Amino acid sequence: MRMYDIIKKKRDGNELTTEEINFFISGYVDGSVPDYQASALCMAVFFSGMTPRETTDLTLAMAKSGDMLDLAVLGDKTVDKHSTGGVGDKVTLVVAPVAAALGCTVAKMSGRGLGHTGGTVDKLESIPGFKVELSSDEFFAQVKEIGISVIGQSGNLTPADKKLYALRDVTATVESVPLIASSIISKKLAGGSRHIVLDVTCGSGAFMKTPAAAEELAKAMVEIGTMAGRKMTAVITNMDTPLGVNIGNILEVKEAVDVLKGGGPADLREVCVEIASLMYASCFDCAADEARPKVLKVLEDGSAFEKLKAMVSAQGGDTAVLDDPSLFPAPQYSHEVKSPRGGFISHMNAEQVGIASVVLGAGREKKDDPIDYKAGISLLKKTGDAVATGDTIAVLYTDAEDKISQAEQMILDAIEFSNDEPEDEKLIYKVIV
Amino acid sequence: MRMYDIIKKKRDGNELTTEEINFFISGYVDGSVPDYQASALCMAVFFSGMTPRETTDLTLAMAKSGDMLDLAVLGDKTVDKHSTGGVGDKVTLVVAPVAAALGCTVAKMSGRGLGHTGGTVDKLESIPGFKVELSSDEFFAQVKEIGISVIGQSGNLTPADKKLYALRDVTATVESVPLIASSIISKKLAGGSRHIVLDVTCGSGAFMKTPAAAEELAKAMVEIGTMAGRKMTAVITNMDTPLGVNIGNILEVKEAVDVLKGGGPADLREVCVEIASLMYASCFDCAADEARPKVLKVLEDGSAFEKLKAMVSAQGGDTAVLDDPSLFPAPQYSHEVKSPRGGFISHMNAEQVGIASVVLGAGREKKDDPIDYKAGISLLKKTGDAVATGDTIAVLYTDAEDKISQAEQMILDAIEFSNDEPEDEKLIYKVIV
Repeated sequence: MRMYDIIKKKRDGNELTTEEINFFISGYVDGSVPDYQASALCMAVFFSGMTPRETTDLTLAMAKSGDMLDLAVLGDKTVDKHSTGGVGDKVTLVVAPVAAALGCTVAKMSGRGLGHTGGTVDKLESIPGFKVELSSDEFFAQVKEIGISVIGQSGNLTPADKKLYALRDVTATVESVPLIASSIISKKLAGGSRHIVLDVTCGSGAFMKTPAAAEELAKAMVEIGTMAGRKMTAVITNMDTPLGVNIGNILEVKEAVDVLKGGGPADLREVCVEIASLMYASCFDCAADEARPKVLKVLEDGSAFEKLKAMVSAQGGDTAVLDDPSLFPAPQYSHEVKSPRGGFISHMNAEQVGIASVVLGAGREKKDDPIDYKAGISLLKKTGDAVATGDTIAVLYTDAEDKISQAEQMILDAIEFSNDEPEDEKLIYKVIV
Repeated sequence: MRMYDIIKKKRDGNELTTEEINFFISGYVDGSVPDYQASALCMAVFFSGMTPRETTDLTLAMAKSGDMLDLAVLGDKTVDKHSTGGVGDKVTLVVAPVAAALGCTVAKMSGRGLGHTGGTVDKLESIPGFKVELSSDEFFAQVKEIGISVIGQSGNLTPADKKLYALRDVTATVESVPLIASSIISKKLAGGSRHIVLDVTCGSGAFMKTPAAAEELAKAMVEIGTMAGRKMTAVITNMDTPLGVNIGNILEVKEAVDVLKGGGPADLREVCVEIASLMYASCFDCAADEARPKVLKVLEDGSAFEKLKAMVSAQGGDTAVLDDPSLFPAPQYSHEVKSPRGGFISHMNAEQVGIASVVLGAGREKKDDPIDYKAGISLLKKTGDAVATGDTIAVLYTDAEDKISQAEQMILDAIEFSNDEPEDEKLIYKVIV
């Protein structure tokens, strides 16, 4: 078997066999297939696509390229949740403890943030003392005891995906549904949970810009996850505007805590309730409508918040900051961004707002950049809101005073105004099971 | 400027600027653009194509990446000729001396053979003593004196093309008209001749399998060569069956000598007369019909043959073998391939016949493989010929007795028979100026 023939076959629009896909992935991991052949194949896949069978084979090959967690000892209600990325997306911080409080088993690995999107692991690490690296024994023991643990990805999880994603990232071959789907699902398969709920975001802050593109990706992921024997659910959500009002690590933990205490912004709350309900519905094999009242109950009665505190405590974190978020360290500077005109906010480019938060120190441009957990943005006005000239639209938080004016300009550039009230946008487009 | 953005732009079907193309080529040559980005771009070009302006810019960038010969001191009738490859294609050995005998200036660099197609430089080297490496001074002096020199490509000719072609060859990105056209024309531009005649072959022994594909490539090459200021002519010729009867280095020199002495196989003679006429017509700005009688005259009166001898002599070769080809060294073994049935030869896969000649030692599978100049194949029957069972179809020549049965089987596999006489195929499809 020759890599040349595999590239040519895909280039000419033909379906690769399981053996050919395995040859590519194992060769790419062991170095016998060079980067320049892998990137040519990825570009051919970008144009020629892959069948669901090919995408499933690619996913399985990548999942099996490294360690695969076996969560069977934790029972049949292990549930994982994944978002395709967004700005202000702190949903995991809410839904993981909600699901655990309802009897689901959350033994979850999460990622770090890169570019305009944040990562759950960074947000958890903004809680003083919180450890995202546990040994396998510690991880299993904690989940058995309290039903929840969220940790960073282990070193040898899907090495094929790590290597291939890094290559795609510099060869303009990221934006391909089979490649995105296999990258995401390979990590979820290696993560070992039986139930997988995907939050497929769309809009200006998301990877997929339209609901139709998000649906295509969602269907591909549900299909391959199902073929691989997992129970899959996907929900298409709106990420045209940042989710909730806070962007930045400590700021987002605070907002998640608000929701877990029964409050929080309506949009964030709605998405969290939907996703937690889908997680419960998958594990307990019921309708989402049946799950919803149970989710609302654990938000109201504080048991979901207690579950978060139990996890934070078990992983060495300081729960005092959760009880009283004013104890979190405070940034040196805050700055109010004022509206230059009156009217309505008709659009807010979420990606640009996300990048502004990176400028303030809340995220990374490159993989190993340091993060300022205190930095970020609070949006006092969002798409659809009426504003008067001089109203505060956003508050910027940072230790880097010299970055404030740049971030302010980016926020103002990200906003479009109108004289008429814009139509309400849907927050949740569709559920795919 | 980032290579990532250039790849993405082409991937999305947009036209690259001159600056972007120059950035790619200069970066690829100096190593700042890695192979994996270059191969991704080539695959994107395969799918998205290039405009004539882009292709011209790519061609110029590659031509300028190394040495460029300036032949202006040799006058305004410098003419180069290039074939896109074939089996038994010894046309240069005939048309170069014909053109020189008619007053054109042939200061030409040629390549070596690879795979199923041979190279002029190897054929010339099969003449005992012939030197294909001359210093620049020797080269110019010889052309000034006798009007002709054919040498190997200099070390630093189009390094960008050399590097890129090697990459395309292992990433299934060879078969792209703008990439093929720019590769060929960049070398021709660097070669410096004012007039360029392209023999664009099509059929089973050629890179382009159909006349339509060959015409597309021919038009692209004529367009970019013209944009770059050269006088371009292309002719589409049939390479479905090997050209002439001999395949292999000494065998082909012998056949070229036959044509230069006024004889030789009709098909080879026809193609040589056409191409030599186009070379003369370009240099002397006349119609090909006007050139043809002049070409026939120098073939009949021996002046073209004398020009070949003058060149061979000037480059250190033994002209005795040209006067008496029986003086060429002889192979140890010859073997007759017999027809397994009667009827007509309805098709002969030229590529397979070319590969059979490589098996016998006449060509290279890999770049630095040695060649046996004596090895090869003489076809006594070709497409369209009637055969009886047991007739000799071909004679194999080699020093490698153990390869004979494999080559014989390949020849037999390459031939299709029919009961009815097949229709005559055109030899010359079209001239594009």
